Amino acid sequence: MKITPDCIPCLISRVFYEAKLSTTDAHTQLKAEEAAVRAMCNTSFDGPVALLSTAVHRATYRALGDDDPYRSVKQLANETAMRLLPAVRSIIKSSDDKFHSAVIAAIIGNTFDFGVMGFEVVPDDFEKEVSAIYRHGLDIDDTSAMKVLLNNVVYVADNVGEIVYDGLLLEQIRALGGYATLVVRGAPVLTDATIEDVWKFGLDKVASRVMTTGSNAVGINLDEAPADLKEALSNASLIISKGMANFEMLSEYNFRPVAHLMRVKCKPVADAVGAHLGDFIAQLVR
Amino acid sequence: MKITPDCIPCLISRVFYEAKLSTTDAHTQLKAEEAAVRAMCNTSFDGPVALLSTAVHRATYRALGDDDPYRSVKQLANETAMRLLPAVRSIIKSSDDKFHSAVIAAIIGNTFDFGVMGFEVVPDDFEKEVSAIYRHGLDIDDTSAMKVLLNNVVYVADNVGEIVYDGLLLEQIRALGGYATLVVRGAPVLTDATIEDVWKFGLDKVASRVMTTGSNAVGINLDEAPADLKEALSNASLIISKGMANFEMLSEYNFRPVAHLMRVKCKPVADAVGAHLGDFIAQLVR
Repeated sequence: MKITPDCIPCLISRVFYEAKLSTTDAHTQLKAEEAAVRAMCNTSFDGPVALLSTAVHRATYRALGDDDPYRSVKQLANETAMRLLPAVRSIIKSSDDKFHSAVIAAIIGNTFDFGVMGFEVVPDDFEKEVSAIYRHGLDIDDTSAMKVLLNNVVYVADNVGEIVYDGLLLEQIRALGGYATLVVRGAPVLTDATIEDVWKFGLDKVASRVMTTGSNAVGINLDEAPADLKEALSNASLIISKGMANFEMLSEYNFRPVAHLMRVKCKPVADAVGAHLGDFIAQLVR
Repeated sequence: MKITPDCIPCLISRVFYEAKLSTTDAHTQLKAEEAAVRAMCNTSFDGPVALLSTAVHRATYRALGDDDPYRSVKQLANETAMRLLPAVRSIIKSSDDKFHSAVIAAIIGNTFDFGVMGFEVVPDDFEKEVSAIYRHGLDIDDTSAMKVLLNNVVYVADNVGEIVYDGLLLEQIRALGGYATLVVRGAPVLTDATIEDVWKFGLDKVASRVMTTGSNAVGINLDEAPADLKEALSNASLIISKGMANFEMLSEYNFRPVAHLMRVKCKPVADAVGAHLGDFIAQLVR
């Protein structure tokens, strides 16, 4: 996905947000923004948006002298997501189509910013929200077509918190006889999951194997990815891509088939996938 | 006022907003944002925020090929403000302290974005709002100290719409025997009033004389201002500065005494003047 006019103010707001997460010193915050703006000046506006956001966040982190401004937010997100997991797990357990139900769970994971922006979840409210999403169903639902492509899945994770719900879908893929390679970021960027999160939740025992993207690029940048990841993506019977950043970057490459599982949280992505803002989608691209 | 970390995302959002006002073509909108970002790269982040915003908006307008993206918004603002003027005029008329009441009117003008962002005013609602503001009064109220300094006022206007309420205060200054030089922007920038607005509302007959800032700089940039404006500012018994952009720039110079009349609409300005977000202030700096 290329850069759209919506992306620039969104990205700069995100830089300010992460600068505030990292420090209360206004001078350092401004230096971080200046570094982000300079990174924008040195990056093509005609290219993929994930390349721009990677350059911008790297410059911001460098100026902040902080390799993970989201550290405490991520910890809170993981704790919150874990606390709410049993509610979702029990829905899947009692479901007729556990795979379909687990796909929704994984998208629910992508829906909530656990621990971000003052997200205070009372378990009761969360269960109500989750029930509402299950009743609503998916706005684009290609789960049946996905279900017959599970023998060699590459599962590209997105955020912390969310990843505990990805575990529920990985379980179903394995239960259906599928092989599942879980891919996480090679280093911290935004609230994205890394290998530490995989270990923390024992997802290395749920997935058949685990790989990383090889860097802290937003989404996947093949120029920075290890050879075995490229091979895995090429040979996959199905790539499951979680969230918008992975969509933004995987839409630049030709790996097929790929299923995009996400809550559509911005207009440019909505336009690119042909959905509406706020939609819950499991969209298979062959 | 220097650049704060809040200013950068705010400014970029404003660029996107004005790009959308000017064109529906996404490619042109993005080009405008790129031009704005490049202008930021070429401007010091240690300087006054108004110099940065001037550079950014000029670059944006150039990239849009549009010397006044706010044209239609400004027209609507003027029409809306005029339609609602009688309600405020009658409050002043029945007031014991007409000068004080007119200062509030001028700040009310600075409060509403007439015609901006879907501002739909029913006259009844507006009267209720206005009454509420009069009951609330000013959070910083130096009107008594201002009142004895009116013999040679330089009145630096801010927005269209608002300027019809400035007319009410100019009337009171004249009624109290004061000489009032009205200053508007030398060319269109944002929703700021220009000489065309002065003529439209006959404010050239209300003020003793009218000058412009000599350019479309945000606020006043003395390097671009005509000599007679510098002289007027130097010789003024009182400068009345409307709104945040004029504050941002006049706070860089040493003209005194200056009264800042505004609704405080952002945190950095609130911090700089020692007020709270949302405050209505008439603050005299000697």
